[in-house]
Amino acid sequence: MKRFTTTLLGLGLCLSAMAQEKTDPAAIQKIRKEGLENSKVMDIAFHITDVAGPRLANSPGLKRAQEWAVKQFNEWGLKNVQLEAWGNFGKGWQIDKYYAATTLPFYHAIIGSPKAWTPGTNGPVKAEVILIKADTVTDLDKYKGKLAGKIILFDQMTIQPLKNTYKPDAVRLTDSALNAMAAAEAGQVAARRPGNPNNMMAQMLKMRATRAAIADRLKEENAALLLAFARGNHGTFFTSNGASYALDAKAVLPELEISAEDYLHMLRLLRAGQKVEMEADIKTSFYDQDPQGYNVIAEIPGTDKKLKEELVIIGGHYDSWHAATGATDNAAGSAVMMEAMRILKAIDFKPKRTVRIVLWSSEEQGLLGSRGYVLKHFGDPKTMVLTPDQKKVSAYYNLDNGTGAIRGIYLQGNKEAGPIFQEWLNPFSDLGAKTVTINNTGGTDHQAFDAIGIPGFQFIQDPMDYNTRTHHSNQDTYDRLVEEDLKRSATIVASFVYHTSERAAQIPRKELPKPAPVNP
Amino acid sequence: MKRFTTTLLGLGLCLSAMAQEKTDPAAIQKIRKEGLENSKVMDIAFHITDVAGPRLANSPGLKRAQEWAVKQFNEWGLKNVQLEAWGNFGKGWQIDKYYAATTLPFYHAIIGSPKAWTPGTNGPVKAEVILIKADTVTDLDKYKGKLAGKIILFDQMTIQPLKNTYKPDAVRLTDSALNAMAAAEAGQVAARRPGNPNNMMAQMLKMRATRAAIADRLKEENAALLLAFARGNHGTFFTSNGASYALDAKAVLPELEISAEDYLHMLRLLRAGQKVEMEADIKTSFYDQDPQGYNVIAEIPGTDKKLKEELVIIGGHYDSWHAATGATDNAAGSAVMMEAMRILKAIDFKPKRTVRIVLWSSEEQGLLGSRGYVLKHFGDPKTMVLTPDQKKVSAYYNLDNGTGAIRGIYLQGNKEAGPIFQEWLNPFSDLGAKTVTINNTGGTDHQAFDAIGIPGFQFIQDPMDYNTRTHHSNQDTYDRLVEEDLKRSATIVASFVYHTSERAAQIPRKELPKPAPVNP
Repeated sequence: MKRFTTTLLGLGLCLSAMAQEKTDPAAIQKIRKEGLENSKVMDIAFHITDVAGPRLANSPGLKRAQEWAVKQFNEWGLKNVQLEAWGNFGKGWQIDKYYAATTLPFYHAIIGSPKAWTPGTNGPVKAEVILIKADTVTDLDKYKGKLAGKIILFDQMTIQPLKNTYKPDAVRLTDSALNAMAAAEAGQVAARRPGNPNNMMAQMLKMRATRAAIADRLKEENAALLLAFARGNHGTFFTSNGASYALDAKAVLPELEISAEDYLHMLRLLRAGQKVEMEADIKTSFYDQDPQGYNVIAEIPGTDKKLKEELVIIGGHYDSWHAATGATDNAAGSAVMMEAMRILKAIDFKPKRTVRIVLWSSEEQGLLGSRGYVLKHFGDPKTMVLTPDQKKVSAYYNLDNGTGAIRGIYLQGNKEAGPIFQEWLNPFSDLGAKTVTINNTGGTDHQAFDAIGIPGFQFIQDPMDYNTRTHHSNQDTYDRLVEEDLKRSATIVASFVYHTSERAAQIPRKELPKPAPVNP
Repeated sequence: MKRFTTTLLGLGLCLSAMAQEKTDPAAIQKIRKEGLENSKVMDIAFHITDVAGPRLANSPGLKRAQEWAVKQFNEWGLKNVQLEAWGNFGKGWQIDKYYAATTLPFYHAIIGSPKAWTPGTNGPVKAEVILIKADTVTDLDKYKGKLAGKIILFDQMTIQPLKNTYKPDAVRLTDSALNAMAAAEAGQVAARRPGNPNNMMAQMLKMRATRAAIADRLKEENAALLLAFARGNHGTFFTSNGASYALDAKAVLPELEISAEDYLHMLRLLRAGQKVEMEADIKTSFYDQDPQGYNVIAEIPGTDKKLKEELVIIGGHYDSWHAATGATDNAAGSAVMMEAMRILKAIDFKPKRTVRIVLWSSEEQGLLGSRGYVLKHFGDPKTMVLTPDQKKVSAYYNLDNGTGAIRGIYLQGNKEAGPIFQEWLNPFSDLGAKTVTINNTGGTDHQAFDAIGIPGFQFIQDPMDYNTRTHHSNQDTYDRLVEEDLKRSATIVASFVYHTSERAAQIPRKELPKPAPVNP
């Protein structure tokens, strides 16, 4: 997922009084048996992560994974399987070689990665590491003519020493946390952070502009390589945005994100006046032949004469960051959604409404795949001019919060959906999934649907080690996936899809969002 | 430290009835002020780790650190500063280049390290990774002629998938754990593990012999590189013994220890029949010009006419493993002991007995530096033939259990020392150090003294993340050092040294160990 934020919205629920929703115990029994006793979810995840690799937007890794999904959907007998372009993205990129080490004061190989969309070093480089303290471009004047061929490490006050971790890396939601979510009520709004958000945004943009200007100057000075501090510890590091992926992006210097331990080592040495030397050999490739972005789509066609034109859509983003194989972000959600489709085919489900899965791309760059898809098929959230198909989608379900099992669902402020989902969760309370919350959650692709007035939902999941170890990190690998959790999630999603498809009416809708104000 | 084991030995204590020991409040006040308010312990640790680097026995890194310690001791005005040979060790070794990556099914740089004392690859290699399952040498017959130039990954049943960590990495000793240690009594012996230890040892030796025979066969087959699974997770990995450091060690293949994530990735791919290819470029150097091992020694000479011939010795091992800078194992203990000496000089202490610090080497290979030192100066623990100097050492204090603060002291079964140490700890109960336990602790250099009848003690320390993250790992870096803890430890050690030096009598001794039975 792109970012994780929770706010409280909507009106209070009184679930028990409205609980008239029906479930199909025989179907649930079949789904549970297939999902819990004959699961393929780990095998699916293995192919997305271990075999396909990192899946940065428009990269060869994403393409491999997409082609495998197409093949897999066809093998399962899904219909209308396709890669569908959602719009223009830009350049693909991948790492072909990463090697970096300190050579003075002693030899030590550095844990790190090129920043996404940065160029390589054009062969091996070996150079002194120069400590630069610059809050503005003019602070760089004193280094003029001294940085050609050098490796640059920034001394920033914001870089803090590492601390011991006295809390567990992985956690599950406690009963009291779930109860609090369930009890969330009308008009509850999460406490705002201090400070004026407009000011903060202005500051952030200013800081970003300063950084870009500093990077430009360092390029003019012909520095060889930039080093960036990466959050994390114990060999885990988190990646962040690299350079622009636009086709006409301007040239930038090679830049490495390196583990906190290795960065702080050099920072301490340089602050103490010790000489530091490094060698590096970085190769990266860009792919600009087809700048379009693609989503993978597959269906189980509806069979009810009247309802088959309607849709239940499930999905998760398939793209990842580049420093690992994006196992929890979001091979996990993708594998669960694929497995839910497999389960429904395996029990020979003939849905009334058409069931569609979409595996999004470029979510990490701003939900681009799902927003592009929604714009193409359902309408423009800016103008709120809708297509006729907008009305045909009963609901969109998303999964993108890591490997943790589904514990319930966020209503995204859709009060009337509450009693329905509560009833649908009841058969899964033995699996720990029982909480319905009026709360919003953000940062992922259900928002693209919610923005155009289609009920879009993300499930509540146990956080596990998502925030401490895996989310955008170099350690987001298959090892982090918890089989039991993924099985449970796929089983629950399959049941939600089943009931959404078979339900007489669509999932109730919230009031339509208002168009964005037109700029003068 | 080499290994961490705790057993319960000795007789019960009745501390309160014997507590007649005196302390010197004015001296303690001065020591606390210097140690807690003017500490240099982090600066010392910085030089041992960040500047000197990994300090494998007889490596250039250890030599750099030893030379710095000599310089530092002289600057502080310590006397008789020297590097003293303790006996023959063998070859030094260091890493000059580590680069490894998978290239199929996709490019991914591997977190790992050469095993200590293994050779390099003699230039870059790129080859298929072959999965080998072999419990005996004959299991290799089927691979005959197929392994030349290949990279070998072993499929072992003992290699298990990683699990999420629901417990904190770092912990401190609880009051109840400390109380249990304090309450340990005569004759309490830790529960033995199931199984006959002789059988287990025989099995281990057999397994080791099998592994060596398999490695020999793979060398005959001209494999290019061996890969070994390293314990740990999230980018942290733990090193183990490599090849022999003997001058006449036979030739072995290059061998890498790689992080569990990277090993398991390849293992899963190969088990599933996927092709895996790697590239690597490993360079290592051996140093055999001077096979002797050295300890660093320095003194504050005694000033009492009668007692100055007697000694209080403090120490910790200065050597480390090679994959990081050995910050908690054992730059921490070394820095604390050095800082204790600095504190005593800073307060202008003129000790009655001579105070000596020794920074051991080759502890990691079996307490070789301290055992060699003891053999040279105090006697042979096999025959128990003692030198006259054996009687002159009042006590030896050691520190080697990581960055955690001193919480008390292990009596190592020396019941009579209990009331003395309890009294000496009383002024530090506000720092959390108050526990005296009759228990033994093992695995480090105080055992060399204990074995020859000289009272040798290791302090009780908070474990912190020693077992989860740092002990022999690639993440044993300066970042793991906790300043407050090291300050407290140095202050307490300085006070122990002060009181041992000034005490009228030596620390009471246990009965002399018996000579080892002569082999027929």
